[in-house]
Amino acid sequence: MYEGVVQDLIDELGRLPGVGPKSAQRIAFHLLAADPVDIGRLREVLGKVAEGVQFCEICGNVSEQSQCRICRDARRDLTAICVVEEPKDVLAVERTREFRGRYHVLGGALDPLSGVGPDQLRMRELLTRIGSEEVSEVIIATDPNTEGEATATYLVRMLRDFPGLTVTRLAHGLPMGGDLEFADELTLGRALSGRRVL
Amino acid sequence: MYEGVVQDLIDELGRLPGVGPKSAQRIAFHLLAADPVDIGRLREVLGKVAEGVQFCEICGNVSEQSQCRICRDARRDLTAICVVEEPKDVLAVERTREFRGRYHVLGGALDPLSGVGPDQLRMRELLTRIGSEEVSEVIIATDPNTEGEATATYLVRMLRDFPGLTVTRLAHGLPMGGDLEFADELTLGRALSGRRVL
Repeated sequence: MYEGVVQDLIDELGRLPGVGPKSAQRIAFHLLAADPVDIGRLREVLGKVAEGVQFCEICGNVSEQSQCRICRDARRDLTAICVVEEPKDVLAVERTREFRGRYHVLGGALDPLSGVGPDQLRMRELLTRIGSEEVSEVIIATDPNTEGEATATYLVRMLRDFPGLTVTRLAHGLPMGGDLEFADELTLGRALSGRRVL
Repeated sequence: MYEGVVQDLIDELGRLPGVGPKSAQRIAFHLLAADPVDIGRLREVLGKVAEGVQFCEICGNVSEQSQCRICRDARRDLTAICVVEEPKDVLAVERTREFRGRYHVLGGALDPLSGVGPDQLRMRELLTRIGSEEVSEVIIATDPNTEGEATATYLVRMLRDFPGLTVTRLAHGLPMGGDLEFADELTLGRALSGRRVL
């Protein structure tokens, strides 16, 4: 145990996800030797975060203005919406440069055991968007795990009755650069059942 | 790239040692969802650190008061001083519960290429302490690397002429729980040359 403020700092840093006691100590001693201006910048941005971050009123992504950069962009395809769980998933899809439509951030996935039902996610907002915008395709890009799959199933059932709306799901299969022999059965099974005619 | 304050936060977190872009993003989204009170606590402690941390006027360790807990402790053995590079080394030695003396924190190790000479370390303060306190043993516990060894050699030469002072160095050898066949030559060589009669 260190004394006073140093231990306080290590304790606070150790509460952050992925920061163990050793990392917390390392960061703390880095900060002890750091320029107060740098620490000030970190404090300032933490203050802004504590005051609350704005979310895009259309898609729910983190945003600087009332509408995010993507929703404001007139060049984006208004007919396609990609539904993701979290803002970081928007970034992941954007990095592919394959999608020119817009997004809808649910804010998580269905997880009844943790008390996350449809009302805790931005499901109603998605229905409103599909009802009022000229959407022809909804791409479900929730995570390929239990909660993500359950959310996808729920969305498919919810969106089935919209006339003229295509609902698609990201393909499951072998990851690129992977090795067939090391693929797990579930992934290989999905890759088989989703095989495509060449 | 996220927008506005979220990206600022990720950038600032990414500057910390051992925090890569992925960890920074993870911590940032944790903080976005965190209780403002928790963020406030982190900000407060950062503010205190930016204002400057106090160091013990005797040993140079981080301290809450003008003298640290160990130097204030009347039960500690005043005749032994353990010389370490950094405050975290004090903690490492304390954890062994084998040492009941006091410490002297140099604030680093000799590293002429990075501009760290004897004047950048708390060498003079050590001499003053040995001259004024009733010290009979100085244990050199600098790191077992090039800079630490150079610092130890320098200290031995500096302290050689004090009458009645024993200067010792931590033993080098095989780490406990290790395996002889996996020990590097340098360590094994040190273990051999430092062998003890049973």
